[in-house]
Amino acid sequence: MRLLIEKMKAKDSVVVVGIDPVIQRFPTEMLENFPDTYGRLMAFGTEIIEGVFDLVPAVKFQSAYFEACGLEGMRALKDLIARAKDRGLFVINDVKRGDIGSTATAYAEAYLSRGADFEVDAITINPYLGDDSNEAFYRMASENDKGLFLLIKTSNPSSGQLQDLEFGGKTLYERVVEDLKANRFYGGNNGYSFIGAVVGATYPVQLHRLREALPRSVFLIPGYGAQGGGSEDIKAAFGPDGYGALVNSSRGIIYAYEKNPGGIRQAAREAVVAMNKDLNQWRRP
Amino acid sequence: MRLLIEKMKAKDSVVVVGIDPVIQRFPTEMLENFPDTYGRLMAFGTEIIEGVFDLVPAVKFQSAYFEACGLEGMRALKDLIARAKDRGLFVINDVKRGDIGSTATAYAEAYLSRGADFEVDAITINPYLGDDSNEAFYRMASENDKGLFLLIKTSNPSSGQLQDLEFGGKTLYERVVEDLKANRFYGGNNGYSFIGAVVGATYPVQLHRLREALPRSVFLIPGYGAQGGGSEDIKAAFGPDGYGALVNSSRGIIYAYEKNPGGIRQAAREAVVAMNKDLNQWRRP
Repeated sequence: MRLLIEKMKAKDSVVVVGIDPVIQRFPTEMLENFPDTYGRLMAFGTEIIEGVFDLVPAVKFQSAYFEACGLEGMRALKDLIARAKDRGLFVINDVKRGDIGSTATAYAEAYLSRGADFEVDAITINPYLGDDSNEAFYRMASENDKGLFLLIKTSNPSSGQLQDLEFGGKTLYERVVEDLKANRFYGGNNGYSFIGAVVGATYPVQLHRLREALPRSVFLIPGYGAQGGGSEDIKAAFGPDGYGALVNSSRGIIYAYEKNPGGIRQAAREAVVAMNKDLNQWRRP
Repeated sequence: MRLLIEKMKAKDSVVVVGIDPVIQRFPTEMLENFPDTYGRLMAFGTEIIEGVFDLVPAVKFQSAYFEACGLEGMRALKDLIARAKDRGLFVINDVKRGDIGSTATAYAEAYLSRGADFEVDAITINPYLGDDSNEAFYRMASENDKGLFLLIKTSNPSSGQLQDLEFGGKTLYERVVEDLKANRFYGGNNGYSFIGAVVGATYPVQLHRLREALPRSVFLIPGYGAQGGGSEDIKAAFGPDGYGALVNSSRGIIYAYEKNPGGIRQAAREAVVAMNKDLNQWRRP
């Protein structure tokens, strides 16, 4: 996470651009120019990366949209990860994996081991299987100087169905937080832990409480924009230094061209400039 | 699931062979004959499929081990899925996905939509995000006549860390069961629902209670063999007709050649014959 914080400071931005490409939604001209799936994903992803790389610290690929395109989608994911790294971006793959220990280790190898095709700087993980699963990721991330974002309180409308259940005065997501804080991998010498947390912008009260509970975790915050979360809802998450939260926007940036005649690249760029300005107002001392 | 039950009856078997390939563990001769990742995975996977296809209803690919091999791993996964289908097997991809609705739909397209590269007959899904996520999978599976296995009580040692937490006299996993049973997609006209459940062999008491709670779900049962679950522990799961559970073994079958000089194919075959016999004794009226 040290690398992420450095890039946030250098760009003066806490925005991560979510790359969730849906080919059916691409402009007709792009579909005509690139007849195959790989070419279309590369062309679209490259426009986004080139439009935003100097303005933001990070991009977040949503693995599902690439898996949905099959083998050519996975090839594009590999090559777009490389392109984003070449442009100096911190690269997150939003995979939300979780499994029994041996299998979780295999997932960790896929995304966090040096030289892997899909190697990125950080991934998201799901806590439902408990610490067998989590620790397989913690171990690999620790060894390879990578980052993790553990799902705590997700941004979707039904996130409370399990996550908000209360037992003994604590919710399930608060229990996930307790287990994380008690884990030997959490913490570190100083500064932020390599284990961050996914906390939705759509639940500002919980966001505020979680910031207090997890002062050493960077929050990955989905739900800004298209999902309904506003920048003021997020302000508590930035923490005293202003770098405690990385705020994601996907559709609001990558499809900005639908309402902006400047084209994909320019529209994404303008949307990021506006988002940086919107968020930076709340994280100034 | 209708298709799965038909195949279980035709083969008189409730065994699913888990294909979790770790290249470092392959025999030296195979590594020498096949210098590349794709070739190795195909050779190994083909030996397993050819060894067991006439003895079992299903195979279960563990996606993590293919993702860990990068793009060539994904290419092998695609081609091994096709090979298993050609051999008449019900094919499960153990992906344990879960995400916000729009993203869960993309995952469902990747694995459950007709003609997708990674199209299989059923996948496993993770309930931590609630019904936005679950229903995206339920909808796609329902439309395409596919199966799902919702993680309820997993087989790993730390599965109780969250899943066994109690609130209001119910555990978290019992709450997942209640929500499933209340869902409009659950049920169906008669016979088994297309929504099954993952329940570990390593927790026989819970398995017994879950069988009563979910009489219309086929259970996908990991944990037999290498993880420590025995066949007697599983007997409650078969239900009155003897087809209520599909029992997975991965390492005990695919690496059986390490203790059997007959080679990968023959050793896998013999391990399956023994496992069929072991399980069938408990599911007879």
